Amino acid sequence: VKFNTGAFVVVLICSLCSGQSQTRVPSTNVSGSEYPRLNEDLSATFRVQADNAQKVQLLMDLGQATYDMTKGADGFSEVTTKPLLPGFHYYLISVDGFASTDPGSKTFFAARKEVSGIEVPSSESDFFAIKDVPHGIVRIEWYFSKTTGDWRRILVYTPPTYEESNQRYPVLYLQHGWGEDETAWSHQGHENFILDNLIAAHKAKPMLIVNENGMTGVNFAPPPPPRPGTTPPAPPPSPRSMANSIKEERYTLFESVIANDLVPFIDAHFRTIPDRDHRALAGLSMGGGQAVRIGMNHLNLFSYLGAFSPAFFIDDPSKDYDGAFADPSKVNNELHLLWLGVGTDDFLLAPVTQSHETLERAEIKHVWVKSSGAHVWTVWRKYLTDFAPRLFQ
Amino acid sequence: VKFNTGAFVVVLICSLCSGQSQTRVPSTNVSGSEYPRLNEDLSATFRVQADNAQKVQLLMDLGQATYDMTKGADGFSEVTTKPLLPGFHYYLISVDGFASTDPGSKTFFAARKEVSGIEVPSSESDFFAIKDVPHGIVRIEWYFSKTTGDWRRILVYTPPTYEESNQRYPVLYLQHGWGEDETAWSHQGHENFILDNLIAAHKAKPMLIVNENGMTGVNFAPPPPPRPGTTPPAPPPSPRSMANSIKEERYTLFESVIANDLVPFIDAHFRTIPDRDHRALAGLSMGGGQAVRIGMNHLNLFSYLGAFSPAFFIDDPSKDYDGAFADPSKVNNELHLLWLGVGTDDFLLAPVTQSHETLERAEIKHVWVKSSGAHVWTVWRKYLTDFAPRLFQ
Repeated sequence: VKFNTGAFVVVLICSLCSGQSQTRVPSTNVSGSEYPRLNEDLSATFRVQADNAQKVQLLMDLGQATYDMTKGADGFSEVTTKPLLPGFHYYLISVDGFASTDPGSKTFFAARKEVSGIEVPSSESDFFAIKDVPHGIVRIEWYFSKTTGDWRRILVYTPPTYEESNQRYPVLYLQHGWGEDETAWSHQGHENFILDNLIAAHKAKPMLIVNENGMTGVNFAPPPPPRPGTTPPAPPPSPRSMANSIKEERYTLFESVIANDLVPFIDAHFRTIPDRDHRALAGLSMGGGQAVRIGMNHLNLFSYLGAFSPAFFIDDPSKDYDGAFADPSKVNNELHLLWLGVGTDDFLLAPVTQSHETLERAEIKHVWVKSSGAHVWTVWRKYLTDFAPRLFQ
Repeated sequence: VKFNTGAFVVVLICSLCSGQSQTRVPSTNVSGSEYPRLNEDLSATFRVQADNAQKVQLLMDLGQATYDMTKGADGFSEVTTKPLLPGFHYYLISVDGFASTDPGSKTFFAARKEVSGIEVPSSESDFFAIKDVPHGIVRIEWYFSKTTGDWRRILVYTPPTYEESNQRYPVLYLQHGWGEDETAWSHQGHENFILDNLIAAHKAKPMLIVNENGMTGVNFAPPPPPRPGTTPPAPPPSPRSMANSIKEERYTLFESVIANDLVPFIDAHFRTIPDRDHRALAGLSMGGGQAVRIGMNHLNLFSYLGAFSPAFFIDDPSKDYDGAFADPSKVNNELHLLWLGVGTDDFLLAPVTQSHETLERAEIKHVWVKSSGAHVWTVWRKYLTDFAPRLFQ
């Protein structure tokens, strides 16, 4: 026993000497996994086993940056990235053309499949961290949609006071982006901890948050792999085609799911304040486009709208969105809030800025946030922190 | 429009001709993914893209059956298995030595990492299917453990009536196996639908189910990949070493998490009946060993114990488990139920049967179920269906 204890101490000291102690394991690793590791300069070292591989690559941010990994004598392939931007990054490992998850990482649903993720912490990670404040709950609920004819899974955040009180609460319907699903806002976005922290600081009203699956409709290409003999899967749609898809959907499934199935279910099964003054609809990217389009078509249901880095493109208020913005004074009267934001490194910066300018010219009141950052969760978490305190005041 | 409709009909007919219509997409696929597919004979066809791979393999049941996949001219590798046993199977894809998830499948936490899974439906799939009955909720909760000094995630099933009534409810603490986590019983096990269905049929009392993470302790080897220069990861422990690990844990973390942190949290935050007569502790495999050991050490807390295909090995009741079984009449008086079951194809059949025989010789009352099946979720779902109706009657 004494010998074992001694050996343990030696291992500990060697670990300190080697400099390994200056690296950290990210919160996105599976429990006990030592890789990937974060280095002091916010670079990260990835390491996977692929004994007989010819070519192993790290696809950071789903391929926006590709790193070749080097195979060592032990069969493990490794690479250290350049310093990463603080926040959350999706990634995949590609082995001889097979792009899949890193066994060391938790998985997150994006790009229509489960992928890996790495959280790079910074001084700005505090607002979405779990803290010693009262915590709400994320509930996994199933409900039957007449529109789609099947049982659908939704996630519902109820605030800390919900169960102890008999109060009724307002509701934020909050949607993910293309290729993600109803788990994204809690799993990637930490909506629950963000709201817990805002509510504890008296910065936001207690509210419910409902997450549905916006990838509902007929206009999405199937993900890989296709059946033999069929066309290869389409790449993610362009912003403009995404906006058109969303427009098509108006006449199809998702709008009906929200308006005819989801809102009635939520109002029937939760203590909500079931009127437009106490309902918000927001989303990111494709979900932002859905929020604006569905919201403007259902001003009887919603009075607060949020569009985070959205697929929302308006050139001519008199015609676009079927004229929903044609009468600025009506829009200004009916909407308590129209929130629009995009990051300066976002590939949607130009078209979203143009939409903002269109609204401004038309004197349609809106909150406009041009922030730093790209088309990433790091930005959307911050947007929720700006958006939620403006609701239901 | 007419031409398009015609083309659609043609495609539909061709699809019928080709025999593709006789295959099905399993419920475990990500939405829209066409592979893997189930064939009529319950074989499954897997298909992944790995353009430059030398060797692509399907590792069914985490390697218990390995299939070589054949690469076609299109760069996709494919294989059709022999007919699979109905129920749930874990699997991985191995590409040139890199074992990871199939992008076409949802992921499930097992073997200390995220893996793929395929549900093979049968006439026995009905009891864990979602039906048009009142549904409970699975809640994702976080609580602070003084034992481990960190916030821990738990999943809590509350039955359909929980929110509408002011009643108090009994609680089943239900644990996963080695390498899995607190998500397993709802995600792989469908505990929520199983209970919804049992409660609707008046076969089980409404109860809460709490799932914690039993991989808490000092006796588990880290998962791959290891740091350079360290020992390669250990394979999953043998049944006997697993039992010993669990014994060690008695003095360490998980037992204290359950007894000192979790049970008090649940009783403080839910409308429970906070006494031993209304608490059950059960688990599968490693979790079954934990249930028996922790339960027998805390008969002040628990009076119903369930061990599904468990790491529970008793030869000498006077000594094993520190003599917890030494006084049969005391055990028989104090336990309302000791449930023990194992499948005839389970690698633990012999030792668990021996434990049953030991209990029988010692005249310790217990329910003994020797079922068909191996060490798989298909069996554990059925065990829950047998176990839950016996609780709190």
